[in-house]
Amino acid sequence: MQNAGFPAFCLILFHRTIVWMKYKMILAYDGTSFGGWQSQHNSNSIQGSVEQALSTCLRMPVSITGAGRTDAGVHARAQVAHFCLDLPTDLLRLKTSLNGLLPSQIRILSLESVPDEFHARYSAVSKTYHYHLHLDPVPSPFKRCYSWHVKKNLDLDRMRSAAADLIGRHDFTSFTNESRGNEQKNKVRTLHRLDFVEEIGGIRLEFEGDGFLYKMVRNITGTLIEIGTGKLSSIPLILAVLDRKSAGPAAPPQGLFLHRIVY
Amino acid sequence: MQNAGFPAFCLILFHRTIVWMKYKMILAYDGTSFGGWQSQHNSNSIQGSVEQALSTCLRMPVSITGAGRTDAGVHARAQVAHFCLDLPTDLLRLKTSLNGLLPSQIRILSLESVPDEFHARYSAVSKTYHYHLHLDPVPSPFKRCYSWHVKKNLDLDRMRSAAADLIGRHDFTSFTNESRGNEQKNKVRTLHRLDFVEEIGGIRLEFEGDGFLYKMVRNITGTLIEIGTGKLSSIPLILAVLDRKSAGPAAPPQGLFLHRIVY
Repeated sequence: MQNAGFPAFCLILFHRTIVWMKYKMILAYDGTSFGGWQSQHNSNSIQGSVEQALSTCLRMPVSITGAGRTDAGVHARAQVAHFCLDLPTDLLRLKTSLNGLLPSQIRILSLESVPDEFHARYSAVSKTYHYHLHLDPVPSPFKRCYSWHVKKNLDLDRMRSAAADLIGRHDFTSFTNESRGNEQKNKVRTLHRLDFVEEIGGIRLEFEGDGFLYKMVRNITGTLIEIGTGKLSSIPLILAVLDRKSAGPAAPPQGLFLHRIVY
Repeated sequence: MQNAGFPAFCLILFHRTIVWMKYKMILAYDGTSFGGWQSQHNSNSIQGSVEQALSTCLRMPVSITGAGRTDAGVHARAQVAHFCLDLPTDLLRLKTSLNGLLPSQIRILSLESVPDEFHARYSAVSKTYHYHLHLDPVPSPFKRCYSWHVKKNLDLDRMRSAAADLIGRHDFTSFTNESRGNEQKNKVRTLHRLDFVEEIGGIRLEFEGDGFLYKMVRNITGTLIEIGTGKLSSIPLILAVLDRKSAGPAAPPQGLFLHRIVY
């Protein structure tokens, strides 16, 4: 009986290895009422909400890996995550079921199978973040959760010129809060572009780079505002000293959108 | 003593008559979490919030009169209200104080003194409402409170043609829910334009007219959707029967914005 059972057990293992599948998910979320992508201190998280909906739909525990963690209050127009299943699934039906279960602040935009080598975080070639500055004298009620209302008079030419000094390959230690336990981490990143785009009631800063350190976009935005008001001046100096204290404070989370990830 | 006091009392009355002032206020609000412009059933109202802030700032009870009542969940980019004070006031300081006291969902955009003949409701020459239809296959989390997500396939040409039949001077009885106790009210209004404007993720219906009956914009929008899906067809017939039951259901409140009032 034992001899007869062995080949059958091998066959089951073999079969399960073949149908192991990896899936890529693109999702949008309004981060206003969430504790961020990854939950901390028992706050409700985007990742947790999606994992719960997936687990309910598929009747098994499912973990997802996001391209990057967004903080509490930060939004995403196209966050990417991957997950693995050991059985094939009807993706169109799964997407519809997930969107039916998820709160209306989170929506799965697409779901597709990807090769096993794909990794939402490590396969990313570039990421684009948008930061919305609201500059009207009276803040619009409709922008309160989706922009930073800056009352001060800003010298936009100074800010554009400072932004140009950030383009290229730099050690961005001065612009990250990653120091805690991460002193050895390579903090060199390439910022491909930092564009100022006029929009109704303000300006959108478009950041595109090969990767971003923790709070890097918000710290750069906060620093550019300090440069716009004349409190700070030299980006090359701030970059050179490799010290977070040399840069400006972080811009608030609600103005930040993870806009696009390229693979 | 009585004779000497009489002229002094008259002088005070005379003085108070001279400085009686009327003020016009333009305000924007996100109606998502409010029970409408005017409170009902003890829900929190826009009018109540503004009156409370005004009364706090001016240390006396102040009532405001709005150009029109918006329902729960309906928004305004430029609602107009007037109020009267029997003393002059620093309008710039008052605007700043009000915006400091009001919740961030409500903002006073401007405050100016107006002639005594001005009335926020009766002096209005035209009003413009926008209704936002969201037509993407998956609803955006950022539009959930500011549009109506319509999943059905719509024949937009049919809808545009039907909209053209609404332009002009008509009895809009079929498109209002005002019947309760208002049977004698004149329900003839002039719709100057009803434009379809493409925007990201959908279409904006722009209604401009000399005045709008209760729920008229939402009832017209709901009817146009029924025409777009083929459930209803003839606007002239719906107008002619003067019966609310002949038109389609009201579109939900969150897609509606009071956009502009001309005096």
